[in-house]
Amino acid sequence: MGEGKKQVGVLGLGRMGAALAGALLGAGHDVVVWNRSPLKAGPLVDRGARLAATPAEAASADVVLSCLSTYDIQQPVLEAASPKVLVNLTSGTPAEARSAAAWASSAGIDYVDGVIMAVPQGIGTAQSRILYGGSPTAFSAQREVLSVLGEPVFLGEDAGLAALYDLALLGIMWSTMAGYLQALALVGTEGVAPAAFTPMALSWLSAVGGFLPGIGAQVASGEYATDVSALDINAAGLGLLVETSRAQGIDASVPAAVRELFDRAVASGHGAHAIASVIEEIR
Amino acid sequence: MGEGKKQVGVLGLGRMGAALAGALLGAGHDVVVWNRSPLKAGPLVDRGARLAATPAEAASADVVLSCLSTYDIQQPVLEAASPKVLVNLTSGTPAEARSAAAWASSAGIDYVDGVIMAVPQGIGTAQSRILYGGSPTAFSAQREVLSVLGEPVFLGEDAGLAALYDLALLGIMWSTMAGYLQALALVGTEGVAPAAFTPMALSWLSAVGGFLPGIGAQVASGEYATDVSALDINAAGLGLLVETSRAQGIDASVPAAVRELFDRAVASGHGAHAIASVIEEIR
Repeated sequence: MGEGKKQVGVLGLGRMGAALAGALLGAGHDVVVWNRSPLKAGPLVDRGARLAATPAEAASADVVLSCLSTYDIQQPVLEAASPKVLVNLTSGTPAEARSAAAWASSAGIDYVDGVIMAVPQGIGTAQSRILYGGSPTAFSAQREVLSVLGEPVFLGEDAGLAALYDLALLGIMWSTMAGYLQALALVGTEGVAPAAFTPMALSWLSAVGGFLPGIGAQVASGEYATDVSALDINAAGLGLLVETSRAQGIDASVPAAVRELFDRAVASGHGAHAIASVIEEIR
Repeated sequence: MGEGKKQVGVLGLGRMGAALAGALLGAGHDVVVWNRSPLKAGPLVDRGARLAATPAEAASADVVLSCLSTYDIQQPVLEAASPKVLVNLTSGTPAEARSAAAWASSAGIDYVDGVIMAVPQGIGTAQSRILYGGSPTAFSAQREVLSVLGEPVFLGEDAGLAALYDLALLGIMWSTMAGYLQALALVGTEGVAPAAFTPMALSWLSAVGGFLPGIGAQVASGEYATDVSALDINAAGLGLLVETSRAQGIDASVPAAVRELFDRAVASGHGAHAIASVIEEIR
């Protein structure tokens, strides 16, 4: 083990847990892994990981990363492990993260909650970013180890913040993908192939990204004046999208829900305002 | 008038029509404008435009751009104008564009239908792109004039294609903006300001854009195998987003519609497939 290398325990060797352990091994850390089914540890043991027989054995490390499938499955494992410092990377809701943090606090465990904004194949690359909330001292002490996995971003002491950001960001992804699939289906009704449409969708999505900071600023100020694009025009456009989708024989349920939201904002008096005013109907 | 400069008629001087006429004047073309209310022509006349008393007078130009508020308002204007070459930039559905193209054909008018992927302030800048469908010969003959307004992209002879692309692309924008506003509302429930969240949303949106070509390729092939991110995991995540949005006291109607769409795809047997398989529930 070189200078600054640590003993790191990894609980859970699903796709993501195995990718985390692999990246830590690649960076020269001393990695001890535990998984309910020990067979999954084989490739990691071949690369130098030690296989722990129990969660507690893995949890004797300087820091423990937990990456199990759900909080319900995780909790008895954590109770058996009783680590000194826990970085919880199991996916869940902000409420679940806060509940785990409260348990850790009562058990005298330094706790950081993280969410991984990457697929397993991206761990340890420049495409990986991991958001954290919880103990600032534990985060600072483990920052170098965590940097091996992806760019670490500390959001604050609220252990639920990372899960909240995660859901918010994934929500943008799901909405955008639903919009893209709707678009592919729509142009597909006239025989336009994804390869023909996608380059235009990408440059347009990049332009749309350019609109977001202005929308964010309007949300922050509550000033929704516009001389560019009024909500009522966009709501009418959504009506055309729904109508045309149906006329072309495809499902329109997602654009219909967006239209319904925009229409509610128009009905609340935001017709001449910017699209940003729609947030008044959400919050 | 310099070499290659043309007489261009512009019917309709709303924000967009005025921006089109202004860009053409800026490029040195001979511009003749018509609007139902001639008062709107003042600033353009000051810059050298000629004001036509009737649509027919504007339509004596080499090429006529029409940019009125709806097809219903446009049709009698076009019938009065009877131009030689018409570039129709009025917004509408693919069906409206095809109907206008059929009328133009019966009236012996060379017809191109265009949609403007820009706000009026963007006309004539690198941020402006205009999609066209219809007569390839008319498009080629007018390409240089049209390039003044924004990057011209010819999609094919179907006059409804530009409107179809327009709705598809705007649909991506509306979905993405709805996802972003939902995200701002969600993190806002814990006091996170738009300025703190938006940089992360933008880099994430850029990563999401990077996923789209792969999704498009899966849609094209109908092969939905994945070793990265299965639909059932994403559908469960959408469930958490809906649940957490409601628990935080905000509206969840748009993510609920996306979840319902994803759930239907899971119910159809796509749970272990990639997100791309959701298109099977749309088309």
